[in-house]
Order: sequence, then C-alpha cells, then structure tokens
Amino acid sequence: MFAKEVYVRRRRTLLAKMREAGQSGLILFVGNAEAPAQFKDNCYKWRQDSSWLYYWGLDEPLMAAVMSIDSGEEILFADDVEIDDIIWMGPQPGVESKAASVGVLRHRPYGEIAAWMEERVKGRPVHFLPPSRYYNTLKLQQLLPGGKPSEALIKAVISMRLVKEDIEIEAIDAACALGYEMHSVARDAIEIGIVEQEIVGKMESVALAKGWGVSFPTIVTQHGETLHNHLHDKRVEPGKLMLIDAGLESNEHYASDFTRTYPTSGKFTAKQREIYQIVYDCNELAFSLTRPGITYREVHLATARKMLEGLQALGLVQGDLDEMVAAGIGGLFQPHGLGHNMGLDVHDMEDLGENLVGYDPDQTRAKQLGLGSLRMARRLVAGHVITDEPGIYFIPALIEKFKKEGLGYDFVNYAKLEGYYDFGGIRIEDDVLVTADGARRLGPCRLPASPDEVEAVLAR
Amino acid sequence: MFAKEVYVRRRRTLLAKMREAGQSGLILFVGNAEAPAQFKDNCYKWRQDSSWLYYWGLDEPLMAAVMSIDSGEEILFADDVEIDDIIWMGPQPGVESKAASVGVLRHRPYGEIAAWMEERVKGRPVHFLPPSRYYNTLKLQQLLPGGKPSEALIKAVISMRLVKEDIEIEAIDAACALGYEMHSVARDAIEIGIVEQEIVGKMESVALAKGWGVSFPTIVTQHGETLHNHLHDKRVEPGKLMLIDAGLESNEHYASDFTRTYPTSGKFTAKQREIYQIVYDCNELAFSLTRPGITYREVHLATARKMLEGLQALGLVQGDLDEMVAAGIGGLFQPHGLGHNMGLDVHDMEDLGENLVGYDPDQTRAKQLGLGSLRMARRLVAGHVITDEPGIYFIPALIEKFKKEGLGYDFVNYAKLEGYYDFGGIRIEDDVLVTADGARRLGPCRLPASPDEVEAVLAR
Repeated sequence: MFAKEVYVRRRRTLLAKMREAGQSGLILFVGNAEAPAQFKDNCYKWRQDSSWLYYWGLDEPLMAAVMSIDSGEEILFADDVEIDDIIWMGPQPGVESKAASVGVLRHRPYGEIAAWMEERVKGRPVHFLPPSRYYNTLKLQQLLPGGKPSEALIKAVISMRLVKEDIEIEAIDAACALGYEMHSVARDAIEIGIVEQEIVGKMESVALAKGWGVSFPTIVTQHGETLHNHLHDKRVEPGKLMLIDAGLESNEHYASDFTRTYPTSGKFTAKQREIYQIVYDCNELAFSLTRPGITYREVHLATARKMLEGLQALGLVQGDLDEMVAAGIGGLFQPHGLGHNMGLDVHDMEDLGENLVGYDPDQTRAKQLGLGSLRMARRLVAGHVITDEPGIYFIPALIEKFKKEGLGYDFVNYAKLEGYYDFGGIRIEDDVLVTADGARRLGPCRLPASPDEVEAVLAR
Repeated sequence: MFAKEVYVRRRRTLLAKMREAGQSGLILFVGNAEAPAQFKDNCYKWRQDSSWLYYWGLDEPLMAAVMSIDSGEEILFADDVEIDDIIWMGPQPGVESKAASVGVLRHRPYGEIAAWMEERVKGRPVHFLPPSRYYNTLKLQQLLPGGKPSEALIKAVISMRLVKEDIEIEAIDAACALGYEMHSVARDAIEIGIVEQEIVGKMESVALAKGWGVSFPTIVTQHGETLHNHLHDKRVEPGKLMLIDAGLESNEHYASDFTRTYPTSGKFTAKQREIYQIVYDCNELAFSLTRPGITYREVHLATARKMLEGLQALGLVQGDLDEMVAAGIGGLFQPHGLGHNMGLDVHDMEDLGENLVGYDPDQTRAKQLGLGSLRMARRLVAGHVITDEPGIYFIPALIEKFKKEGLGYDFVNYAKLEGYYDFGGIRIEDDVLVTADGARRLGPCRLPASPDEVEAVLAR
C-alpha cells in the first residue's frame, strides 16, 4: 500500500476528470468478495479488484465506496470485526483507522449500502465500472437493477491507470526483478525426463515465496504452438522447444510477464535456430521502435513485416512484403498481437474493455487474424508499460484451415510448411516502459534472449 | 478420471435413490465456469465442481447435464471446440467422445440448455444442488428463476459421497502421501530469520509439482491462536511455535489436510511441551475411539474432557470434568470442532450444507462455542474419511471476553491464564479412514507427531 496522499490525490484527479467531462451524480466502487473455489469457506487466494486497489488501497474483501461528483463527499462501506473474526483471523484494526489510512473520513457498515443508495441516489446518475467477477455482477444487479457501466468513468480511470506514476514504475521494476528470478529457476529446472508440472512447481514456488503468486496461469509447454496451454503433464523430451510464459504478481499486486523458449537439449537445431533468430530480431526491432509518438499498431506491423522477411528467406512465404502484411499473412504465424498493457493487471484493465484500454479514439480494431488480437494499439506516451512479445507458431490445424479456404495461396509455401508441422512455437517476451525519449526494459537485467545467450546460460 | 463404468454406476444409483425417495422430474447439474481473478481472460486455476466431478467426471468449464428421474434419459450440454480454441488451447477431442468417456449418449450445445429446459420442464420439478460459486448462482437464476435447491437431491448425493468407494480411498491415500511430502518440505524449511512466506513457497511448490495445488489456503503462522491466519509476513523467531496447516489436492482432485506444530528453536520449552502433550493425547484418544457405531460428536466430547483434564493438571481450570464439558469450557481453548469430512473437497460437500452433511437426522447442532463448530457429528460407518484435529489456543481477546461476561468463573483460573497470553496455539491433525473394525490413518506413514518424534525430526 502507498501513502494516504497517493489515494487522496488519485480520487481528486478522478473527480476533476469527471467534472471536466461534464458528469454529475455519484461514483460507486464495489470491491471484491472472496471467490469460492469449492464452498464459501474454501476460497481461491484473496485478490482485490485492481481499480479498487488503485483508488481505495484497502486490500480486504467486502468493501464498497461512493463519491459524490458534485460535493466531493466520500464514504466507505465496510464492517468492523467481531469476536468471531478475531478468533479466526486475529486482532484487526477498526474500519475507522482503515478508512483514515487512505484518507477517507466517513464510513458505514457494508450491509447498509443498499439502503443508503436508495435514499441518496434519487434519480441522480450512478457511475460504476464493469464488474470483473460474478460476485460484483450480482452485487450491482442488487444495488442498481438494470444499471449499465459508465463509459465516462471507464475512460477517466483508463486515462489515469494507463500512464504509470513513478511509484508504480518502481513497483513494476521490483515485480520484474522477482519475475526474472522465477524464470531463472524454471530454466534451471529443465531436464530431460521430468514432467513439465515439476518445472511449474519450482517456478511458482518463487512467486509464492517472494510475491502474491503468479500474475496469470503459468504456461510451460513443449507445444508452444498451443498459445494458452495449461496442461503440464508431458515429460521433457530431447530436441524439443520448451516455451515458458509466466509472471509474478508482487505483494504490492503489480505484475511481471516474461516468455522465453529454450531448446530442451541445450542447443538449438539448425532449423530451430533459424526460426528463433527471426523471433529475436522481431523482439529487438519492436524495442528499438518503441518511443513516444509512434503507435504500437505501427510497431506491431513493422515486426510482422520483419517476421515475413525472415520467413521469406527460408522459403516459407514469397511475394511482396507490404502486400503480405496487408493481407494478414503474419497472423498465420503469429495469431496474437505484439503486446498488451501491464500494471496492476497483467493485461492491464482488461475488465474495463479491451478496445477502450488499448485503442485511441481515432483507431479502429482490425478484424484480421493476428492484428485483430492486438490488445495495445495506442500512440505511445511516456509512462506506458507494455509487453514486447513476438512469436512464430506452426499450428497444423490453422495452416490446414488457411489452405482449405484458399487463403494466402499467393504468398504461402504450403508444401514446405508441412515440414514444420511438428516444430512447435517460439515466443520471446519482455516488459517495456515507454520513457521520455525511448524505452527501457523493466527489471534489473534482461533474461538471456539471443540464441547464443540462451545456449550459453543452458550450458552453465 | 475413473473408468466410464464408475460414472454410469453412480448416476444409476442416484436415480434409484431419488425414485426410492418418491421423487420425479428432472435433475439438473451445472458445472463450473472459469473464475475470473481480474478479468475474463485471467482466471484462477481451473477447478471443476466436486459433485459434477463425482457424477460426470469431465474436468472442463461450461458444461451442464440433465437426467430424467422418470425415464433415465441423460443429456450433456457442452460445446465442441472451434478453430479459435484450437489456436489457444490445442487440438481437443469432440463433445461426442467426451460424453462417451463417461457413458453419456446424447449431447447438445451449452447455449441450448435454456431453450431445452423451457421446452421440457413443463411444470415438472427440477432438482438441483446449491450453487457453490457466484457463476452457478447466476446461471441457475437464469435457467430456473426463483428455483430452490432440492433437499431430496442433496440428501441422495450426500449419502453417496459420504461413504468412500475403494477407488476413492486409494486416491485419498495417494493425496495424503503427497501431503506428507509437502509437510516434510515445510518442516525442513523452518529456519530462524526467514519470512514465513518463504516456507509457504517451498511447501506449495510440492503441491503444484505433484498435484493440482493446495486443497485450501495454507496456514503457516507463529500465531497459531489465530485459527485462519493467511498472512505470512512474519520472520521466524526463536522460541516460538510454528503451526502449519496445509493440504494438497491431487491431480485426481482428492484432498489431504494435515496440521503439525513445531518449536522454531528445535526443542519445546517445558511450558510448550506440557500443552503439546495434552493436544497429542487428545489426538491419540480420538483415533483410538474412532470406529463404526460411535458418533463423532461423542469422540469430540471425549477429547474435550481429556483436554480439560490435562489443563486441570496444570492448574488452568478446576472443578468437575463432566460439568466443565457440559458448560462448554473446552470451547474457550478449542473454539473449533474435532474434525470434518474430507474427500473431493477438503471440507467434503460443505457447499451442500454443513448440517445436512455432518449431522444425522436425529442430531441437532449445538450452539456452544467449540461443539457448535463441529462439522462432523454423525454416527461413523466404514468408509467415512474424517480429520482428527484437536488444538489448544490461548486467544487473549476470547479469554478477556469470557472473563468480562462472567463466563466460566467456576472453572477457569483467569489469573494463571494471563501467563499464556503470548503462548500462541497448537494443533495436530491427521486424516482418518473409518474401517470395518476401527480406523486407519491415511497416507503411507504418519507425520512425526509425539513431542519426542517432533524434536527428533527437527534435530536431523
């Protein structure tokens, strides 16, 4: 948690933005409840809502808060602990002091919010964010039947959370330092014959020992072509590519998110190295282009062009590079976008709407495979924190679909591609801060990334 | 997953029980959806609903099923994968073959369930279980507005899941073997000066490497008197008691749940050993009494008496033991019950209602502190799997409350108790199977439990 002043300042800024946008009425924030895994007393690890954390700081379940845009009045709804809570959860500070710790002067019991709203709303608009969990959906249905999330509020919140404050950048740097450690442990755990789940256990132990836990479900797979593979039941085989995409969420709830791809035998085969080099060059190119003023859509397209250039040199595609980019051939090999925003969420604010978060008002999201999955397309400004994560995947089902539908026949060498059906996939991902005059990779140092660096670190 | 025949047999038995109970109409099962942690694409680790796993086996989100009590007809609602799913999640078997793998012959798309229900229900009763998650609450509201869970179905399900089949006992033994390993790693990680979270990271890595993960949020604390302490931010200090209550859920989704309490310095102080010995004796007594025919309520009360006897010898309580037990003085020192059922859930079936699961129809739950928290009171039968977890805690806030309210003045030596305000708490928990002629502790061997065994293993 940051100092009280941070939360007071953020809420004041939010009010000012809402007033500037000509809004009036109330702003309602609903914090998370515990999320039952099996029953109400056996829950997943407690995680507060990120926008709540940003404005209200308090990292506890069953809280809500209302601000008046008109008067600036603020009230926290939360319950004081009772003797039962003390037996089960230990002595706790009262709501009074919790509220004071984030600069809120008034509070009422959590159960009173419905009655309070009924009395005070009186037809005034109530602005709230889209619920990120089913509990919040139910609670909002109960408090404001038929209510719709406020686009004005969403936009005001995005405008603030998208540009990271210095204290946030420090926190993300720290999360990336731990993410670096987590990835190093994973890399050192790769061993022919063990089950992938063993690597997951070792790497996630770092996330649990040093942070809140993982920032998203870990991907550890020798089938990198399956983008979100959460099964870890395969034994490590020689000659394969092991793709590890994993991040740590710090105790301050900031994310890291790195991907590396390792040859399980310690050395890349010639074929693996050729493809790896292309992905590495794309990652480097994206980083070199990242600076205020350029859009991340342009950076995505520049890496797509670079990727196709590399694949052309291998004879896997042919034709004019610009035409290929325009035709979306890049999406056949990289069906995802170049990167996403990162902060309190690993895909920052994705609960507020991918397009509102990742696209400027003058940008329209493409429908094309690959570019259509780009989560961050905006014109970059200093303070943006984004991922740089190009990848090349050979997905037999997708290639066969393209072929069957006659897509890309002018450009794609389908016969040659068949020789890559058992290749798998490669992705190289760093976390990047947009600075005043360029960009900086987050964390104390970069995980080994070039083919030579990777082989050298595996040989140790 | 078990063989197809297991699920077919269980569903047949369930139908027979519902018919025997004079029920008709339909039975609706709603499987879980992914549980968003921050947004819909960043979810907590996938966990299926346990009753769904028991009857339908399929370990995937967004499935539902309906059985007709009258005709025996069964239908699975689930979606076939599309090309997008293949890109993100890899090639998958079709619903046809998934359904067949658990002996279900008919299936329809998940989205059709509402229309199907509307057409087929026609005023017939629809039996469903209480929803264990907010998603399921929302889904049931949508499918059956105003509907209430079926007590007949709840009772039929409890009667089956409460008595474990041989294949389940094997699975729980295996989970306990891994839970043993997890606890051993935790014990070996205790070291003066490290932060408790480091121990958590090491022990949970075993759960992730060898199983699905933890079966409930891990407790690692030097404040054992706080029963559910999930903060792990303290450094290990000399002379303290470290209470570790943790379990592993296997890849087959069966739980283990053990507690041990260790002296951080390797040796108990004389005062710690006195209290530890009492808790150990209570654990042993409970195990020795556990057999078909006795109620677990009786076992709970016998251990409460044993505990008060031990505390009396130390001069902390005085008076007639039976009167003390009847007055609930045990609850001042052990505000929780002796144990709970365990199986697919660590508190088995707690989503179906604690009293229906843990109490026979002729038993009423007490209101008294301690006995009132007893989750399993039933008359034991072979196949029950329960925990044996007595504990003694010195909770200053609770003792002060008793004192202030004039409770237990005849029995409690409040002056002497003040000398224990910084003592903490001790719990010793094993998992126990009720056998034909007694009981067996689950797992390949018992974690060191007696004071001497504990000191010996810490000295290694």
